[in-house]
Amino acid sequence: MKHLLSIEQLSREEIEAILDRAESFAEVGRRDIKKVPTLRGRTVVSLFYESSTRTSSSFDLAAKRLSADLVSVKAAGSSVDKGESLKDTIATLSAYDPAAIVIRHPYAGAAQMVAGWTAAAVVNAGDGKHEHPSQALLDVYTLRRRLGSLEGVRIWIVGDVLHSRVARSNLIAFNRMGAEVTVCGPPTLIPRGIEELGCEVSYSLNGVEEAEVVYALRMQKERMSESFVPSLREYAANFQIDTRRLNPRQLLMHPGPVNRGVELSGEAIDSPQSLITEQVAAGLVVRMAILYELLAGSEGQTPAGEGEGSKPTPIGTPA
Amino acid sequence: MKHLLSIEQLSREEIEAILDRAESFAEVGRRDIKKVPTLRGRTVVSLFYESSTRTSSSFDLAAKRLSADLVSVKAAGSSVDKGESLKDTIATLSAYDPAAIVIRHPYAGAAQMVAGWTAAAVVNAGDGKHEHPSQALLDVYTLRRRLGSLEGVRIWIVGDVLHSRVARSNLIAFNRMGAEVTVCGPPTLIPRGIEELGCEVSYSLNGVEEAEVVYALRMQKERMSESFVPSLREYAANFQIDTRRLNPRQLLMHPGPVNRGVELSGEAIDSPQSLITEQVAAGLVVRMAILYELLAGSEGQTPAGEGEGSKPTPIGTPA
Amino acid sequence: MKHLLSIEQLSREEIEAILDRAESFAEVGRRDIKKVPTLRGRTVVSLFYESSTRTSSSFDLAAKRLSADLVSVKAAGSSVDKGESLKDTIATLSAYDPAAIVIRHPYAGAAQMVAGWTAAAVVNAGDGKHEHPSQALLDVYTLRRRLGSLEGVRIWIVGDVLHSRVARSNLIAFNRMGAEVTVCGPPTLIPRGIEELGCEVSYSLNGVEEAEVVYALRMQKERMSESFVPSLREYAANFQIDTRRLNPRQLLMHPGPVNRGVELSGEAIDSPQSLITEQVAAGLVVRMAILYELLAGSEGQTPAGEGEGSKPTPIGTPA
Repeated sequence: MKHLLSIEQLSREEIEAILDRAESFAEVGRRDIKKVPTLRGRTVVSLFYESSTRTSSSFDLAAKRLSADLVSVKAAGSSVDKGESLKDTIATLSAYDPAAIVIRHPYAGAAQMVAGWTAAAVVNAGDGKHEHPSQALLDVYTLRRRLGSLEGVRIWIVGDVLHSRVARSNLIAFNRMGAEVTVCGPPTLIPRGIEELGCEVSYSLNGVEEAEVVYALRMQKERMSESFVPSLREYAANFQIDTRRLNPRQLLMHPGPVNRGVELSGEAIDSPQSLITEQVAAGLVVRMAILYELLAGSEGQTPAGEGEGSKPTPIGTPA
Repeated sequence: MKHLLSIEQLSREEIEAILDRAESFAEVGRRDIKKVPTLRGRTVVSLFYESSTRTSSSFDLAAKRLSADLVSVKAAGSSVDKGESLKDTIATLSAYDPAAIVIRHPYAGAAQMVAGWTAAAVVNAGDGKHEHPSQALLDVYTLRRRLGSLEGVRIWIVGDVLHSRVARSNLIAFNRMGAEVTVCGPPTLIPRGIEELGCEVSYSLNGVEEAEVVYALRMQKERMSESFVPSLREYAANFQIDTRRLNPRQLLMHPGPVNRGVELSGEAIDSPQSLITEQVAAGLVVRMAILYELLAGSEGQTPAGEGEGSKPTPIGTPA
Repeated sequence: MKHLLSIEQLSREEIEAILDRAESFAEVGRRDIKKVPTLRGRTVVSLFYESSTRTSSSFDLAAKRLSADLVSVKAAGSSVDKGESLKDTIATLSAYDPAAIVIRHPYAGAAQMVAGWTAAAVVNAGDGKHEHPSQALLDVYTLRRRLGSLEGVRIWIVGDVLHSRVARSNLIAFNRMGAEVTVCGPPTLIPRGIEELGCEVSYSLNGVEEAEVVYALRMQKERMSESFVPSLREYAANFQIDTRRLNPRQLLMHPGPVNRGVELSGEAIDSPQSLITEQVAAGLVVRMAILYELLAGSEGQTPAGEGEGSKPTPIGTPA
């Protein structure tokens, strides 16, 4: 694996390998010194053309816990302001010989293009409405820890599927892991022909009680002014997940940040069924695993502790 | 001490302990390698909802000199833009299992609330008009170094006391250390009943010659449009500290950033009586001490030098 | 050398010494661990009052690869917003006892003034229309690697010479290294009397075929509204460097970021003659060399590898 551009590119075995690696980083996270020297002296560039707290801080901290040197570029206040093309920005940053470039960009396919312009490993941290593979991996990781396996698990993805790269990547990933997926939302927010990706479609929450997992999507306020929904209030009346709709055996997920009182009720967010905080914790170790697999991965090895040298060493090496 | 939420919470002995610790970090700061491994592999989150150079860079550098991994989140360009609640942001950041969260927020009581939502140690870096405890500690540190003790020292706090968390925290801290405090400013900018906190009130600078220390507050330009003062010029005419008003035995302090020519004259700022730069230097070592006491503190120990391992070691250990 | 404020201040021998040092850092950049411990435990402050990707990320990464602790302050979101004077900001940041302050500021002479206010080494990362010495050094480095020497090399600097600190610093540096410089652009954008700095002037590209190196400057879009040029289209028609104008033996340079289709055609940027990416790579090692020379430089020594201790050690020491 040279780049991580999409979930589409990954086989079930490759997904499992990343998740297994993430488990070993979860173990590192329980140590006093939550850090390994794997990427010491190597450079990771983080290049975000859209604002983000969760994804960018998660990748940044992942790089730091792998001891990489981080160059973090936000579109605002950068040459991007001066109209430099993406290609030229990548050429510039590539001149530092980074080991990896983590990129978020508003255009679908941006990460793929970047991979053609640089010798660095490219990680797609979200490209327009296309894909958000690290999100899908952390969600599969979270569910695998809870349920052991996704085989046969029924998952409903609820909300603005049309504009969501998370919906797209997760649908593909959940399918690949053997889950049975239903996408649910108002007809204006479900893309035509999505069944071909291998899912059921529901235009109401009727039937959601069959799901083991309910995955709610963020509802952008802009959708109202764009006439996709008549009002957030009406959307919430029909599609908000609350503790009355959720039964106690169901698990609740959301990619964050949440609009409290729109796609989820406050009670649901804070309920024991909610995996939202576990998802964020998973994000850190899964992103460490992604960087590790791309930059340092090899069979039968695990990250060493601080001070153990920069080469991967056998499983079980203490910190 | 689990959190640092206010000066109110600290006894004189606890304040002294932090200042003693800060002295040992001042010694580290005189070494070639101004760094200790105390927090290696631990994560410090810095979360600022208000702009800041001095406080945020000071905490960030303090964390780095303790070898922590730092996640620095500014409100602009973060999920905060997307309307995420403070509670959800804290849940997100807490999922990284940080050792400490340093927070500045425009609402009084924000840090206290955050402490209820996270397992991390919380440091209040300013909450609305309530408290700014690290500022008060660095000011006490600065004066203790100059004067040996604050016992019986007469301190005038001059300016916009009403809107100032610095005034509030410093008044409490100075009192606790045995100083005698007078607050001074136009009646519109002195809160009613402030005498109950243990201070004199003066509505003019008459009598300021009795003070050993004059502590000027920042005058926000907004106060003029809000009608608290008729004009900055009139404010300056009545309350500006300049070298004519200051006598050569008096010390001058200010929390920064200064409005030159408003609350202080340029000459006063640059005079040998001014402790303003010493205050900033104190900020770094006091914030190292705060993080140390919260995260690594124990009796009779001092920070080790680089390469001495991550455990606190006995006083006198060379770098 | 205490500060790097201008190219003007440097003799040919001093320039050569920095370039030689940069060569040794280029060797570090080819290692797995692209990092040396030279500045461990020392603090570098990066203070940018103008937006920048390339220069600021380059200095930041240079500081990190030297193992310094970095405090990066951008004007937006800092006390600068609150109207603090440059002098007071420098006093504040100097209180952290940084080894170096790297400053970009819109006023010519700002870096020089800063050097008078701080004990830190000051690096001018661009001051108004005055100088940008690290850019000139990286450009000389790039050409020296390609051509062996600049002695007698004919270089045309094309574009908005009037507003360009790059043009000014490069003209001085190229001259000092023995090159023969022509500046070229519309009369409105060539400063009167520039010949006195030691160059020819041309108001058209006629004759550019004699150059071994064509150095194109960035054309600011603002120049059109300011009436310096009638339109970018007309500017491009007369002064754009494209592959028809460039002959295959000529080298092409640009300080970046490029306006594709204005001062350079896309084809020219991407041609094998273009050194633009090499310039960026040179920027990193030259800036490491600048920080090294100011903070750790001494005769006959070279940076040690990671783990070799923080003192400079003899040439050839492995990492």
